[in-house]
Amino acid sequence: MNHQDTIIALATAPGSGAIAVIRLSGPEAISLASDALSLVSGKVFKDQPSHTVHLADLKQGERMIDQVLATIFVGPKSYTSDDVVELSCHGSPFIQQQIIKYFVDAGARMAQPGEFTLRAFLSGKMDLSQAEAVADLIASDSGAAHELALNQMRGGFSHAIEGLRQELLHFASMIELELDFAEEDVAFADRGEFIKLVQKITQELKLLIDSFNLGQVIKDGVPVAIVGAPNVGKSTLLNALVNEERALVSDIAGTTRDTVEDELRLGGVLFRLIDTAGIRDTGDMVEGMGIERTYKTMDTAKVVIRLWSSDSELETISKDWAALQQSHSDKKCIGIVNKTDLLQSEQFTQIKETHPELLQMSAKNKEGVEQLKTALLDLVDTGALSGQSAVVSNSRHYHALVRALEALDKVQEGIDAELSGDLLAIDLRAALFALGEITGAITNDDMLGHIFANFCIGK
Amino acid sequence: MNHQDTIIALATAPGSGAIAVIRLSGPEAISLASDALSLVSGKVFKDQPSHTVHLADLKQGERMIDQVLATIFVGPKSYTSDDVVELSCHGSPFIQQQIIKYFVDAGARMAQPGEFTLRAFLSGKMDLSQAEAVADLIASDSGAAHELALNQMRGGFSHAIEGLRQELLHFASMIELELDFAEEDVAFADRGEFIKLVQKITQELKLLIDSFNLGQVIKDGVPVAIVGAPNVGKSTLLNALVNEERALVSDIAGTTRDTVEDELRLGGVLFRLIDTAGIRDTGDMVEGMGIERTYKTMDTAKVVIRLWSSDSELETISKDWAALQQSHSDKKCIGIVNKTDLLQSEQFTQIKETHPELLQMSAKNKEGVEQLKTALLDLVDTGALSGQSAVVSNSRHYHALVRALEALDKVQEGIDAELSGDLLAIDLRAALFALGEITGAITNDDMLGHIFANFCIGK
Repeated sequence: MNHQDTIIALATAPGSGAIAVIRLSGPEAISLASDALSLVSGKVFKDQPSHTVHLADLKQGERMIDQVLATIFVGPKSYTSDDVVELSCHGSPFIQQQIIKYFVDAGARMAQPGEFTLRAFLSGKMDLSQAEAVADLIASDSGAAHELALNQMRGGFSHAIEGLRQELLHFASMIELELDFAEEDVAFADRGEFIKLVQKITQELKLLIDSFNLGQVIKDGVPVAIVGAPNVGKSTLLNALVNEERALVSDIAGTTRDTVEDELRLGGVLFRLIDTAGIRDTGDMVEGMGIERTYKTMDTAKVVIRLWSSDSELETISKDWAALQQSHSDKKCIGIVNKTDLLQSEQFTQIKETHPELLQMSAKNKEGVEQLKTALLDLVDTGALSGQSAVVSNSRHYHALVRALEALDKVQEGIDAELSGDLLAIDLRAALFALGEITGAITNDDMLGHIFANFCIGK
Repeated sequence: MNHQDTIIALATAPGSGAIAVIRLSGPEAISLASDALSLVSGKVFKDQPSHTVHLADLKQGERMIDQVLATIFVGPKSYTSDDVVELSCHGSPFIQQQIIKYFVDAGARMAQPGEFTLRAFLSGKMDLSQAEAVADLIASDSGAAHELALNQMRGGFSHAIEGLRQELLHFASMIELELDFAEEDVAFADRGEFIKLVQKITQELKLLIDSFNLGQVIKDGVPVAIVGAPNVGKSTLLNALVNEERALVSDIAGTTRDTVEDELRLGGVLFRLIDTAGIRDTGDMVEGMGIERTYKTMDTAKVVIRLWSSDSELETISKDWAALQQSHSDKKCIGIVNKTDLLQSEQFTQIKETHPELLQMSAKNKEGVEQLKTALLDLVDTGALSGQSAVVSNSRHYHALVRALEALDKVQEGIDAELSGDLLAIDLRAALFALGEITGAITNDDMLGHIFANFCIGK
């Protein structure tokens, strides 16, 4: 990929708004913009000082495309370090399209996803884990995820990793130095210190690796599948939880054909609630597709909530509940007997006695909903969040940390087996390499391509 | 509504993007922003010159909310004429929410729809029809609609109306002057000139009123309903027209349960294609609702495209076609015999002979699609667009013009009946009032409330 040309993209959310912002970055950004802009002040755009804003007509020849506010950023004082122009135009998708088309015709290139941030990384404005945090920050949708991403963007996590790496690097260079003088049998590195250091770093890596479970939950939210036979009140429960009439509630069995996703925030953590098509035999192909999706949803969920109606047979519930716990032993399962507002049946008394572990609820009357929220929150150990300095939420970082730990374990084994410095050095380099990949001290084009492909366009 | 306080809103499209822009306007905008912003340069935000941009941490006490770019506009050099601050933040909905919440807690008020533009109107930055054009511009989704709105926003339409109004006003004041000297029987207004003027303005109002049909088509697009029995290929036709696989195409009859809308741009005009649930007897309640919607859709459409399969009975087609044209005599009807790729049946030969006015098509093979596009475009008289100086696209303007014309007709009748100046003056004032309402020279709170309620939030 060429990083010297001029790129353009819509920077704000797609769709219609009062305004939209289009961003140009590269050596031609200012001159391309200046060619198209007639400043209301009568001045020339490209002669304006950095970080100033100008009202202007954006024209293609004599044809007016829009009236815009144009901001000039002269590199390297910009997001990318390039010259940057931001055009704040009227927010119709049609106008956005017209403006981008104009600049692409004039010689700019449509930016790849994340390409602005890639340029910021390549120019040294931020390291790789900070760049990744920008994408996480934009995707953050809960207080905890936001805090985590902001901290990472500001370099908290990078500093922790870079600190470990520098300590390790110091000893590695001592050992490499010994290798140069191998025939003279001198030891520059203090083995006692070295052993302590390896143990300390191993300890810290383990803590970071363990934090990934929590980090993932914070970043991505906890997917919760709500399942049960038709008409046991799944959609009503979803509505009671989010307190809004999002899902289509209807008495027609089989109305919910698509999975409807809704969100619940408890203690800064996001629970993604997934209402599913009722499980039953069906001859209707379209609904059949919905039910297949239910099973897929249950596979990706971390928590499964199983609903029954209070007038169900005890035998049915016992069988279902046992089957669910067996088939989903890797997940947290919560069982709920709903519709306690119905005329209390004999079955219900039996159910309560036999299965005291099941929550009782009237989703319709919003009774028992708070108990369910407590049960959900208990499943996430947010206590660990405040006690922990750095939390890993990125699976690339997680895998690099695991590789660093494996390499350090080998170093430890080598020390125990009294291996010579040259053998230790191989594993030490592997550990350093893995840590360097996190901050981008060590990098390659494939890796960068993969990371930035997950960004949104315009960032 | 208070127009002296400080308002805040998201100005960019809702949802997730690389960045989002939040706009503050009012006397406290700069000081509220300055309280929350720590400029990276170390300077104080509120002391910065107008139209400059600053990188800053946005903090609530010690808690960092986001790193933002903050632009300062010192009134009256701003969109609203108030002091304005634009905050360009990371584009997550969560962060947008947090920032707006912070400022609302600090004393700003959530802006009403269109309230920024309302302030621009009230401060005299633009007249009412220009303000309305801002909303039209944001909603514009075709070349012709964009051009129309941009021209109106830049005052083209206002000038035309204001020109007519000033000419009329001049004569009206002459006639009012006569009334003051009624007993002396002087005539300040030249009746011959006046008659010519009334005729000229009547002529121009008629042209403007006639342009509304075209203006509406340009602004809102032409709704086209595509109807026919199940499995005649409605979804396939829709896909062929827009050349994308938007609608769910399936062999299961009754798959299309919701109306799916898609857009086709021909010659700068937008056609809104509406695929509908197949018309047939059904016992399925959910599908039944879809079919009811089909009939509603046909009512709102300006063009109805009726599809049959090439293996249909001639008698069926003749009956359907006659019934459609009779029941929808107010609409343009286009009949299509689809699936000409089927083995040519005897029926098809009969159909072609009996109904040469029906288009023949194979939507599957995209044969006959261009002919259909031509037929659609022929229905819209775009030629009128280039020949016409001002086109009315706003129904409020249309109704005001009709009222002005009615009043002028009465003036004309009065002149013919040789009524006295005081009686002419009543109708003249009514005409002036109606024209004044268009540009906002004459206005009231109810009217403003109604107009700006249709804006998006943040504009």
